[in-house]
Amino acid sequence: MTRVACQQLTPAIGDLEANRALSLAAIEEAVDAGAEVIVLPELITSGYMFESTEEAAQVAIAPDHELLREWADVAARASVVVIGGFCERGDDGLVYNSAAVADAAGVRAVYRKLHLWDNEHAIFTPGGEAPPVIETSVGRIGVVICYDLEFPELTRSVALAGAQLLAVPTNWPLFPRPDGERPSEATIAMATGRINKMAVACADRLGLERGQDWTGGATIVDPDGWVAAESRAPGMVIADLDLQSALDKRLTDRADVFGDRRPELYGAVTR
Amino acid sequence: MTRVACQQLTPAIGDLEANRALSLAAIEEAVDAGAEVIVLPELITSGYMFESTEEAAQVAIAPDHELLREWADVAARASVVVIGGFCERGDDGLVYNSAAVADAAGVRAVYRKLHLWDNEHAIFTPGGEAPPVIETSVGRIGVVICYDLEFPELTRSVALAGAQLLAVPTNWPLFPRPDGERPSEATIAMATGRINKMAVACADRLGLERGQDWTGGATIVDPDGWVAAESRAPGMVIADLDLQSALDKRLTDRADVFGDRRPELYGAVTR
Repeated sequence: MTRVACQQLTPAIGDLEANRALSLAAIEEAVDAGAEVIVLPELITSGYMFESTEEAAQVAIAPDHELLREWADVAARASVVVIGGFCERGDDGLVYNSAAVADAAGVRAVYRKLHLWDNEHAIFTPGGEAPPVIETSVGRIGVVICYDLEFPELTRSVALAGAQLLAVPTNWPLFPRPDGERPSEATIAMATGRINKMAVACADRLGLERGQDWTGGATIVDPDGWVAAESRAPGMVIADLDLQSALDKRLTDRADVFGDRRPELYGAVTR
Repeated sequence: MTRVACQQLTPAIGDLEANRALSLAAIEEAVDAGAEVIVLPELITSGYMFESTEEAAQVAIAPDHELLREWADVAARASVVVIGGFCERGDDGLVYNSAAVADAAGVRAVYRKLHLWDNEHAIFTPGGEAPPVIETSVGRIGVVICYDLEFPELTRSVALAGAQLLAVPTNWPLFPRPDGERPSEATIAMATGRINKMAVACADRLGLERGQDWTGGATIVDPDGWVAAESRAPGMVIADLDLQSALDKRLTDRADVFGDRRPELYGAVTR
């Protein structure tokens, strides 16, 4: 079993130093709880509700910035994997909504969000490369960010590339929902897990930020698509997941979620 | 608004005459309740738990069989659309797990299930053509059958072809689930609705059949992905759906579930 933690946090917009301390403390807390994989929210180094690209650029960091190196230092010392969102300043000078994967080997991958949500188009440049699937000490981990999760062609392609766990740094804006229902995004995470026989760990955020409220939808889904842990409160959600079971794509002896695909027909629907 | 009904029924295996009466009564009941679209379960004309192709062939019918013509006759008289599963004998002599769409114009389409589940491989021949999306009096309706719903590439392609409502005749075998949770398949239906801004109507079945128990998971999902009606009991579930809203793929002014796709990158994930 692999212990996976998602930290539901409230970053301080534009305050790199405060968010550095917040993220490091969250990683340490999860390490102390025995987590082997630790997922932090989208843009945890920066906050979200920027008014302009220029404002975001002031807190954007390169992938070799000391903040991410500190994440990797803890990851190395504790032998864990850390996935978290950050506001990236690219070599090209552009600003991206990105996520880093850090482990004992350092910052292993940086992923730039492909599907920008709503006003993010006014702030960030969209990524141009498919998500990473990283071989780690606990198995293969894929990474997408927030709205990316709502594109099943993308999450399927990450699963087909071998991901046993999909780590999802998110900032889910709060939308109304019927009484007793989970957030739509959590339902999508469950379906993504079940359809692909892949675990899904969503680290959401909280805290009113420049008038925007957030869902606080932290959710860990097991490879059968059931919720292993979830919380609407600040702090950590944690679960032990059988990531080995995500290597076996059979639902029954004769039903296989990958083997039963008919890709030659998926583009063929016309009317 | 469009009134959609799913009939959760228990067919008699191998008894065409009994299932003819059952399906016609179910259609009439839904018409009396004001339904404009009526979905019947998978293989409602035949039952499911066949021991061999030969046994299934004995109750298989061609698309011009009088039973389906009777569905179409009621559809014409009442100006409704009927979608139901049937055990099909093809022109080629093979046996298919199929669904028919009937309305005032007769049997408009026959779809053969693409993704056969488990032991169905020993009974049926899989379909070789993409699902239909049919222009009807209430909007465009797509059709898939049961396990097909668990392939998001397929349901996305049906949505991209313009379906406002996805009709899903199903026979969901009963699997254990955590207390308080919906069946996995219903969660997938909700996610499919939300991800595509498309309504989804699943007509499931009940009744122990040769040792197999069924979920009884009839579920109608609106184009926002919320459950509009559901039942674990025999009989009808019914809901009024805004199928016009399924034509608008925006979640916000700047977020569009179709327009935001990045298809050029979905096949690009490697590790």
